Amino acid sequence: MTTISVGMLGCGTVGSGVLTLLNRGDNQISESLGVHFNIKKIAVKHPDKKRGLNITKDLSFTGEIENVINDPSIQIVIEVMGTLDQAYKAIQQAITNGKSVITANKELIALKGPQLTKLAHDYHVDLYYEASVAGGIPILRVLNESLITDQITGLTGIVNGTSNFVLSAMKTDHSSYEESLKQAQSLGYAEANPIKDIEGIDAAYKLSILSQLAFGHSINLKQLKRKGIEGVTSNDINGAEVLGLTIKPAVIARQKDHELFTLVGPVAVYKQNPLANVNGVENSVLVTSTALGTTSYSGPGAGSEPTANSVMSDLLAVTKHILLEQIGTSFNKTTDDIGESSLMNLPLTYFLTLNSFTGDEAKISPENYEFLKQVVKVNHAYFCVTKLLTKEQKNELTSALANGVTEVHFYPILK
Amino acid sequence: MTTISVGMLGCGTVGSGVLTLLNRGDNQISESLGVHFNIKKIAVKHPDKKRGLNITKDLSFTGEIENVINDPSIQIVIEVMGTLDQAYKAIQQAITNGKSVITANKELIALKGPQLTKLAHDYHVDLYYEASVAGGIPILRVLNESLITDQITGLTGIVNGTSNFVLSAMKTDHSSYEESLKQAQSLGYAEANPIKDIEGIDAAYKLSILSQLAFGHSINLKQLKRKGIEGVTSNDINGAEVLGLTIKPAVIARQKDHELFTLVGPVAVYKQNPLANVNGVENSVLVTSTALGTTSYSGPGAGSEPTANSVMSDLLAVTKHILLEQIGTSFNKTTDDIGESSLMNLPLTYFLTLNSFTGDEAKISPENYEFLKQVVKVNHAYFCVTKLLTKEQKNELTSALANGVTEVHFYPILK
Repeated sequence: MTTISVGMLGCGTVGSGVLTLLNRGDNQISESLGVHFNIKKIAVKHPDKKRGLNITKDLSFTGEIENVINDPSIQIVIEVMGTLDQAYKAIQQAITNGKSVITANKELIALKGPQLTKLAHDYHVDLYYEASVAGGIPILRVLNESLITDQITGLTGIVNGTSNFVLSAMKTDHSSYEESLKQAQSLGYAEANPIKDIEGIDAAYKLSILSQLAFGHSINLKQLKRKGIEGVTSNDINGAEVLGLTIKPAVIARQKDHELFTLVGPVAVYKQNPLANVNGVENSVLVTSTALGTTSYSGPGAGSEPTANSVMSDLLAVTKHILLEQIGTSFNKTTDDIGESSLMNLPLTYFLTLNSFTGDEAKISPENYEFLKQVVKVNHAYFCVTKLLTKEQKNELTSALANGVTEVHFYPILK
Repeated sequence: MTTISVGMLGCGTVGSGVLTLLNRGDNQISESLGVHFNIKKIAVKHPDKKRGLNITKDLSFTGEIENVINDPSIQIVIEVMGTLDQAYKAIQQAITNGKSVITANKELIALKGPQLTKLAHDYHVDLYYEASVAGGIPILRVLNESLITDQITGLTGIVNGTSNFVLSAMKTDHSSYEESLKQAQSLGYAEANPIKDIEGIDAAYKLSILSQLAFGHSINLKQLKRKGIEGVTSNDINGAEVLGLTIKPAVIARQKDHELFTLVGPVAVYKQNPLANVNGVENSVLVTSTALGTTSYSGPGAGSEPTANSVMSDLLAVTKHILLEQIGTSFNKTTDDIGESSLMNLPLTYFLTLNSFTGDEAKISPENYEFLKQVVKVNHAYFCVTKLLTKEQKNELTSALANGVTEVHFYPILK
């Protein structure tokens, strides 16, 4: 029996989940891998705090991160404390100390993934982060391993459970955006300050991580145009339903030649698209590739055990590498010879709504109405433009429709 | 650069796909793994036949399987010829000759999986068969690797593209079973003799393979009660639609204590279940586990490139093991201390249809009609029993409804 010494940074929801799963799976892991994990030290802010962990083993808590990352006996560091700067420093140090690292920190990987990947490569250690995207779905492993001989051309996903819960509730319960958000908060699906979720920041992080693995390209988050869900009205939701569409918070990346076209924001999805039926806090990612066509992966996007299970998968992957003396085969390397552009620069079809529309068609100029009748399904205040519109045509149409007196919302359509 | 010598048995649809992908991915594989694959020999029935392969390399065909499996320089054998007895013998011989084996042969793995796994284990070689279930979806790898620390409790899937295409077409085009099957045949989705697909034999093989990995249990296919789709009528399809249900060809396995409850046959699926939207030849598997809850995996179930891509994934997995001198870590071992029973032995809810029903309620005895009104939605000839019925109650109800003059079809309901 080989003993692998593990250190942990943080012991919140995910950390406790990891300890629970390690405790529960101890015998099975020993049997199948011949390995026993020794959780040597756990760095937390308050080491003396009483924790309600249902663990049979003694655990050693410390207030100092350095006690974990500088302990020469620790081979693997699990980072689940979830800050940016502090985690970045700690992980850099752990890697240069020769330790493999597993992290669930999406912000960190989205922003510093390529740098950390390079560092891990230079120091011949592993860096895994399956838990950073879509908690319970092994999507990174699938992108990294099973699709290695295939060429990925596009990704479309629902990767933010909070946003998806809010829009799902608005549709199912016919409630307002504010009511649905409150419900999400009371159920623990949204934080008190939900800005990262509803403004698409969290989703953008995840798109960047997915893109690192799928296209070898880390998205420039500063330049990325993203849209949150806070502008989605009940009128939009209901109008979409009338036309057989569902509004969903999406992330999209499509590669065309050497350009990656991206979108983070709400889209209108046709019923037959699998994403239309991904509801509540569920996550789903559709992958389009040359050999396979479209495959889809769905499951819980967050939660203590699903996320912890992804950390455990990483832990076992790293452990196998240690046993094989083959450390240093982390997730794909990234290469950055690819341009970036908004998906909205491509011709798209759109679902448009006129908010505060009174039903008075005179607000739309006759020419535009004639145009609309030719290319769209018109249903009172809802318009479904089923012909591809260039960015310019779309802008022209929306300003003509608004005509100074109404607000036009537009959603790219996913078939 | 390491050269790995590969032999292939068979060169039909899947085999040609493998050669195409190997040819296309050659540079990327060399770059990322430092490996070059040498396809040394391909055993086929007619080695002199002209093949329209768009491959730059010279290929060496042979009429003798022995020339491949007994060639000492060949390290990996890919079996894509798809027979049972001949493939079993050839693979056994290849394994005892110390070669790792990749197969797409579902019949073989369903029936002889545990024996071959044991043999591969004894001879310290790899045995992989990702392509045998759900062509393009890496479901076996997911079951085997990512869920290792998790406990799988249930599997529900649509794993036969032909059956799913036929039932989808019956619903969408309002065509008969016969018309839909003919359409499937003309599109190449069903064979001239489609018995293995429509009678659920192919689906049962796949359930057995999934079950070997998910529960460590190979299903006794001789005792398994399965139902095909040939009895599904337009009346059933339409009636289901009226009640918000879709009839789908399913495989189900649920573990309860030490018993595995299985079903292979058509079921009625509620709209909100992800399987309701899996249409045409697409495959999908829902996995229920302790840590994750339900995750789902969907994609093309067949086709040259998707299936070949799964073979390629296996080839790279085996190659990594060869590079690491760590051959012998094939998919999970199977253990057989688990009982088997039909899912129909558990209380279930049912969708019932009365075929050749004339609308004359008098055919149902008054007592039964009273009973029905209490537990079901009655809609002419369609009944949705939303209360759990034991097997006995279900039998009693169906024979009472039939009353000697009509045919009752019943479908377990999936929520």
